Amino acid sequence: MDKLKQMIIEKGEIREGNILKVDSFLNHQLDADFLYEMGEELHRLFKDQGITKILTIEVSGIAIAIMAALVFKVPVVFAKKTESLNLDKDVYVGQVHSYTKNKDYKIMISKKYLNENDKLLIIDDFLAEGSAMRGLLDMAGQCNAEVKGIGIAIEKGFQKGGEILRSEGYNLKSLAIIDDMKDGKITFRDE
Amino acid sequence: MDKLKQMIIEKGEIREGNILKVDSFLNHQLDADFLYEMGEELHRLFKDQGITKILTIEVSGIAIAIMAALVFKVPVVFAKKTESLNLDKDVYVGQVHSYTKNKDYKIMISKKYLNENDKLLIIDDFLAEGSAMRGLLDMAGQCNAEVKGIGIAIEKGFQKGGEILRSEGYNLKSLAIIDDMKDGKITFRDE
Repeated sequence: MDKLKQMIIEKGEIREGNILKVDSFLNHQLDADFLYEMGEELHRLFKDQGITKILTIEVSGIAIAIMAALVFKVPVVFAKKTESLNLDKDVYVGQVHSYTKNKDYKIMISKKYLNENDKLLIIDDFLAEGSAMRGLLDMAGQCNAEVKGIGIAIEKGFQKGGEILRSEGYNLKSLAIIDDMKDGKITFRDE
Repeated sequence: MDKLKQMIIEKGEIREGNILKVDSFLNHQLDADFLYEMGEELHRLFKDQGITKILTIEVSGIAIAIMAALVFKVPVVFAKKTESLNLDKDVYVGQVHSYTKNKDYKIMISKKYLNENDKLLIIDDFLAEGSAMRGLLDMAGQCNAEVKGIGIAIEKGFQKGGEILRSEGYNLKSLAIIDDMKDGKITFRDE
């Protein structure tokens, strides 16, 4: 998606440890019109997959996921990271390692909102090592839902998550794949 | 907003401690079309206020806020709850007490995304004691942004947050105000 690549180049900030900050439009401040365009692009990529539900994970996946849901006309379910007193007791649980926060945590989805009839599009803002995605796929597997697609905004192609998921046969598409971000210069993969 | 009241009656679940769960459309599973309608209603209520930015707080405020932003054609900024390694060091900090999680925590907004020229609409999913709102108002005050409106999806009118904010002169409007939810029966305030 050319506009996303352009936004990353213009507004992204590279930090130590291969961290790309896109806080001005995706992760802290949100550009609603642009996120809707990303939702339209995800619909273009996955519209023939019979998607019944979009699955994502709090926090940063929610805004893109709900914009895509508005185009797909299906509900979103987002996995929750912390054990709230309010959450149902009857939940699917997945395990995630956060590299940016350097800790493991559990994610949960109430069994009410995910079932074996669901044909899922899993959406997230970033894909790097794929740890959060692994937690989501694990939960989808626990309820025998079918994962029809994985839609990512920004994939760090120099980390191994995307490569492994594609080799496992997942229908993974990313709106922008960064192959290199050394010395402050971002190189995108040709599509 | 009649449709919201109807959704609360049909799909809300009352739990011990005056907790209302609306996980099927607002807090875990998200009904994108309905959230867009809530965004349109918030626009109808605040469209004459010259809003330049929508401010909310992760997690549950984000979905409503970005739908409203799509109608208002302004950006959203959401306050972050946890100190991520990725967050800017130059931040506004607010203090919040969570009654459902029974703990205090800090919320943060990067100074890049909030300034004295902003005319803010603050949006959140619930208003009860108003602790999260107080944290957001504190940060808006730190940068001298003008709070032109507060838009809430569901206000618990039997808790004191809304009454205090209105007495302080804030332009607070809620899409549904619950005056009582004793014995499993929800009574809405007449508008």
